[in-house]
Amino acid sequence: MEHEHIVSSFDEDLGRLDSIIAEMGGLAERQLADAVDALSRRDVALAKKVIESDKQIDLLEEEIDNFTIRVLALRQPMAEDLRAVVVALKMASNLERIGDYAKNVAKRTLTLSAMEPVGNATQTIQRMARQVQSMIKNVLDAYGAHDLAKADDVRMRDEEVDLMHTSLFRELLTYMLEDPRNITACTHLLFVAKNVERIGDHVTSIAENVHFLVSGDKPADERPKNDLSSQTIVE
Amino acid sequence: MEHEHIVSSFDEDLGRLDSIIAEMGGLAERQLADAVDALSRRDVALAKKVIESDKQIDLLEEEIDNFTIRVLALRQPMAEDLRAVVVALKMASNLERIGDYAKNVAKRTLTLSAMEPVGNATQTIQRMARQVQSMIKNVLDAYGAHDLAKADDVRMRDEEVDLMHTSLFRELLTYMLEDPRNITACTHLLFVAKNVERIGDHVTSIAENVHFLVSGDKPADERPKNDLSSQTIVE
Repeated sequence: MEHEHIVSSFDEDLGRLDSIIAEMGGLAERQLADAVDALSRRDVALAKKVIESDKQIDLLEEEIDNFTIRVLALRQPMAEDLRAVVVALKMASNLERIGDYAKNVAKRTLTLSAMEPVGNATQTIQRMARQVQSMIKNVLDAYGAHDLAKADDVRMRDEEVDLMHTSLFRELLTYMLEDPRNITACTHLLFVAKNVERIGDHVTSIAENVHFLVSGDKPADERPKNDLSSQTIVE
Repeated sequence: MEHEHIVSSFDEDLGRLDSIIAEMGGLAERQLADAVDALSRRDVALAKKVIESDKQIDLLEEEIDNFTIRVLALRQPMAEDLRAVVVALKMASNLERIGDYAKNVAKRTLTLSAMEPVGNATQTIQRMARQVQSMIKNVLDAYGAHDLAKADDVRMRDEEVDLMHTSLFRELLTYMLEDPRNITACTHLLFVAKNVERIGDHVTSIAENVHFLVSGDKPADERPKNDLSSQTIVE
């Protein structure tokens, strides 16, 4: 094995971590937008593109994993520098999962495009997704600017996503009860909605990591949660 | 702030990480077993206990997070030692998610216990859960023994869970089509089944981390996946 000359500084390493995270975040945001766009326009080609593109996010996570271990070994960072490396590792894992959920929306879009559309469910999912997309964008900004208030704000906004999800859950159950021909499509839409809701949870977890990065502590207060879908009964 | 005397060795630190992971893993396995047991026996008290106990796993993850950062800062480990610390951090995150999924099964059990039982779905879920529990147990053994072959074996067994999940998905859709009064209960059962399937994915991810810990590389081959539920249509 050849010896590598270490010419970069730790600041350059951190800069590289930041830029990979920014790239992953931008891709994740785009994948979610494209997946939900494909769903609402029944665009099979776009859904296939989303499924295909997920590999890029996976590769970037691997790059972060390897680079992180290298940086820890070579630089042995302390205090805030160490937090920055650990936070990058955790954020990469959240962003990879967001990509997976977008891919699953795209997979179900392929199935749903072969079936009759159901009510307004797709529009509600689009509204939820727009909220989540804006949360992804803002949490990446908060990370880039080390902005504690902005990260905390994103964390609080997940409650709205939970509320939208609970109401959509009820709406989809109602469509199924009204007409059994909707059952298969609505089941896939329930999972699409759940995927978007889970993306919101991962954005929240990124926001908590940004909080930790900037302040050195986890947020002290409990986050308000309002996903009551697991308790919903529609007769 | 008082100065702390560092009297422990790095080996003792690793031992402590291992024992917290073993405790988390044991708890996660128990939580899944109890959640599915509560579901099949319609045991509301046990379901509530599972929901309550999830906090313990969350606290252990926090302990791993804090301890890991401390160990990295104080010991500045290299090579395999560094891998061990990073892997513990990642495994803790997987085990915390497994706990969350078990908690969600318990929450839905509270809802389902108020409704009429549906077909044999609960038994199929129990079979899936038993397979996943044995995977959790084996992956923890593989981690404790640094056993590469055993970790790889667990990784391959997730395919059976995927197959069981796909067949259960189809079965539950059929119950809904047969009788609309089953729709709400089956929807919650679909998510219960999905939760168990996702736990299998997290066990797989732990197995891949054990592989990396022991060998220094990620598994080279693609893992066989067989969850076709996202493509399932029942007319």
